Amino acid sequence: MCIPLVMAALNHSGNEKSFAVGVIITEASAILAAAISFRHRISMLTPRQMFLITSSVWILISFAGAIPLFLISHISFTDAVFESVSGLTTTGSTVLTGLDAMPHDLLVWRSMLQWIGGLGVIGMAVAILPFLKVGGMRLFQTESSDWSDKALPRARSTVSLIIYFYLALTILCSLAYMFDGMDAFHAINHAMTTISTGGFSTSDNSFAQFADLPSHWIAIVFMMLGSLPFVLYIQSFMHRRMVFLHDQQVRGFLYCVLVFSVGMSIYLWREGVDLPHAITLSTFNLVSVITTTGYASGDYSLWGPLAVVIFFFATFVGGCSGSTAGGVKIFRFQILAMLMRENTRRALHPRAVIQRRYNNQVVDDAVVLSTASFIFIMILTLAVITLLLASSGLDLVTAFTAASTSLMNVGPGLGDIIGPAGNFASLTDSSKWILCLGMLLGRLEFVTLLILFSPDYWRA
Amino acid sequence: MCIPLVMAALNHSGNEKSFAVGVIITEASAILAAAISFRHRISMLTPRQMFLITSSVWILISFAGAIPLFLISHISFTDAVFESVSGLTTTGSTVLTGLDAMPHDLLVWRSMLQWIGGLGVIGMAVAILPFLKVGGMRLFQTESSDWSDKALPRARSTVSLIIYFYLALTILCSLAYMFDGMDAFHAINHAMTTISTGGFSTSDNSFAQFADLPSHWIAIVFMMLGSLPFVLYIQSFMHRRMVFLHDQQVRGFLYCVLVFSVGMSIYLWREGVDLPHAITLSTFNLVSVITTTGYASGDYSLWGPLAVVIFFFATFVGGCSGSTAGGVKIFRFQILAMLMRENTRRALHPRAVIQRRYNNQVVDDAVVLSTASFIFIMILTLAVITLLLASSGLDLVTAFTAASTSLMNVGPGLGDIIGPAGNFASLTDSSKWILCLGMLLGRLEFVTLLILFSPDYWRA
Repeated sequence: MCIPLVMAALNHSGNEKSFAVGVIITEASAILAAAISFRHRISMLTPRQMFLITSSVWILISFAGAIPLFLISHISFTDAVFESVSGLTTTGSTVLTGLDAMPHDLLVWRSMLQWIGGLGVIGMAVAILPFLKVGGMRLFQTESSDWSDKALPRARSTVSLIIYFYLALTILCSLAYMFDGMDAFHAINHAMTTISTGGFSTSDNSFAQFADLPSHWIAIVFMMLGSLPFVLYIQSFMHRRMVFLHDQQVRGFLYCVLVFSVGMSIYLWREGVDLPHAITLSTFNLVSVITTTGYASGDYSLWGPLAVVIFFFATFVGGCSGSTAGGVKIFRFQILAMLMRENTRRALHPRAVIQRRYNNQVVDDAVVLSTASFIFIMILTLAVITLLLASSGLDLVTAFTAASTSLMNVGPGLGDIIGPAGNFASLTDSSKWILCLGMLLGRLEFVTLLILFSPDYWRA
Repeated sequence: MCIPLVMAALNHSGNEKSFAVGVIITEASAILAAAISFRHRISMLTPRQMFLITSSVWILISFAGAIPLFLISHISFTDAVFESVSGLTTTGSTVLTGLDAMPHDLLVWRSMLQWIGGLGVIGMAVAILPFLKVGGMRLFQTESSDWSDKALPRARSTVSLIIYFYLALTILCSLAYMFDGMDAFHAINHAMTTISTGGFSTSDNSFAQFADLPSHWIAIVFMMLGSLPFVLYIQSFMHRRMVFLHDQQVRGFLYCVLVFSVGMSIYLWREGVDLPHAITLSTFNLVSVITTTGYASGDYSLWGPLAVVIFFFATFVGGCSGSTAGGVKIFRFQILAMLMRENTRRALHPRAVIQRRYNNQVVDDAVVLSTASFIFIMILTLAVITLLLASSGLDLVTAFTAASTSLMNVGPGLGDIIGPAGNFASLTDSSKWILCLGMLLGRLEFVTLLILFSPDYWRA
């Protein structure tokens, strides 16, 4: 259901000059998609069809999003697709340099790609993935992921409420940035890429273009708001009470951010940075990586080996499920922690009866196995993408962190080329295509796209 | 039961000069251990006691093994313990340089440490870990891991048969090396570290001291023989037929070695190396890493980025369970592959009934969950050890590969310091202690040692 919506939003953005070609092509595919979804009532779709439609819509929109970039900015077709995929998947890796001097409509288009992508991600996580039981997402099966005819109006209202909240948060974020002194253009652009945890900026220096500390804290708050489960916004609105702190995933997320930030702040402070800057820069860059936004303020890869390792690990954390954030996501770590604790107990007390609960919901073996399977597929994909990148000549660190940052939809990697101060422009075309695949795989939670390549899928 | 045995073997090795102090201390602890195992009949031990005894015996023997190294070679206490742990866990990382000029009895002692360690590992994998259900090892629960009084004689005969086969393979390997032209000293030393997949050598150049290709192939064959499940040797001996190729794990192991070696041979050949050398060096170094032996013949870290990445991944493979090899081990990858296939099918056919079988044995959810839990504990440990090493100042690649190579009990890492041509001597003392912990954790399959640190363990 989010799909025609994403399409529509795409079309409305065509009000900038010379987007016409893009609009026509996109319009055509939108009509096609609408035709398909009218012919097959959505409640009649099998999982098989859902996998195919979800994956192909993401791929199609990526190409559609590339058209204006290709026509306006005189970059190669590969670069245009890379930038578009990086935008829509809310990754935020860029191949463009000289952003500060780019035409404004192009910068707005990049930000809009991320904003639309973020919305698409939430919609997919709320309405499609739980139904498809991808990677333990069955845990989040609610009435909004029920595709039967009876529940359809309910699901529709959930999705439109999500859109309202998403829009409201973006407006709030823009106002906060403007209140802090940013002009409207920068504020709105950054608001769109903050809430979507995307990370595209209007400057080659990313967020370091804003030297003041308050703007960093506004970004921190709204990156985190974009990484919370959007269904909880609706619940707290409906029931008029704060449900956030009762949610196990949100608590885990906040705890995780706190531990990482405090640790890094102390480290940076002991390295000689004054306390306000140490706290702000540590928290900003870590929240940026954990929420998979990918803004950088300063080159944290120069903070020393321990910092590099911590940022590398932070790449994998991700936000909460049902948000715009990528990554492994907090609930999966919590399920795995539960599994490890349980196995320890079982080793000591072989006959113990243990029941798993998550958010007061019973977690059966199937959910745990599906979560574990997700992680292994991720690791396998990470290994394959790293191998492919290395075979195109990249060194171990660049290949491995490029693979990680694309699969987790974060943005910057490590090393001289693609580090927080670097740029993806100098990579070979084949590397860029591999990374496009990686970003889409990560965004579609691996299974949704990979299943199309399994022999089982094509067997009657 | 293997424990007093390991102790006894340790004592007999005291026939070299100036091992006396070592022998007395070791003897004392052996008597103590024997006293404990007599007081509590082994069949009465709870899992809780088994975890404690297994872990502490490995730690005690490591210190005992360090005594001669410390007294003879004038290295620091830290270095002596590191070398001893690296020996007994059959890792093969060394802090010693100038090996070629070392007294022979010291070199023999290093080789014996690995040989004894290898035997201890097999004994533990056959008799203790299946009983403790560590990391999916319940799959290998046979009569030899049954601790009831009735099955005890049977278990004893299994263990002594394993010793005979281990000894026989070592003698065969020595003879093969001698037949190829090695003198007795080099042949026996390398036979001991080949069969135990340990990787200590008598030269700083490791296996590159033998320029001829046949010696490499002898090593390849015996490294692989040391990585097969030793219980299968007994079965093929008892039933007088080859059971190896019917074993799913052995088939997976051979397939894995084949794919890695053929791929790397082609790569090296295309880089301009002549075909015999390309095949031999690729296969030798990859089998050395996959079987977690850790011999090096030439510096494969200079073969280009793709080779580096492949060797990095090969570090994690490991041999079969119930062998001397470390690593994740083949059966775990097979269980996980099974899980991923199954989840793919379940996503497409939600109501499908799927039964898992491994080696014609039903695999229930508990085994899969325990295997998955093993991998996550491994990853978590890898992350923590990497962080600790980075905080002592090592760069990302050195810290990450040092952590991997120690946890997997392989030997060499990557990077300038600890690469296949490098040496662990220049690391700080704190790094060495962290790596000692890592090697023991890997050898004890994480759970066995880590469980002692869990609050559940110490709660009544």
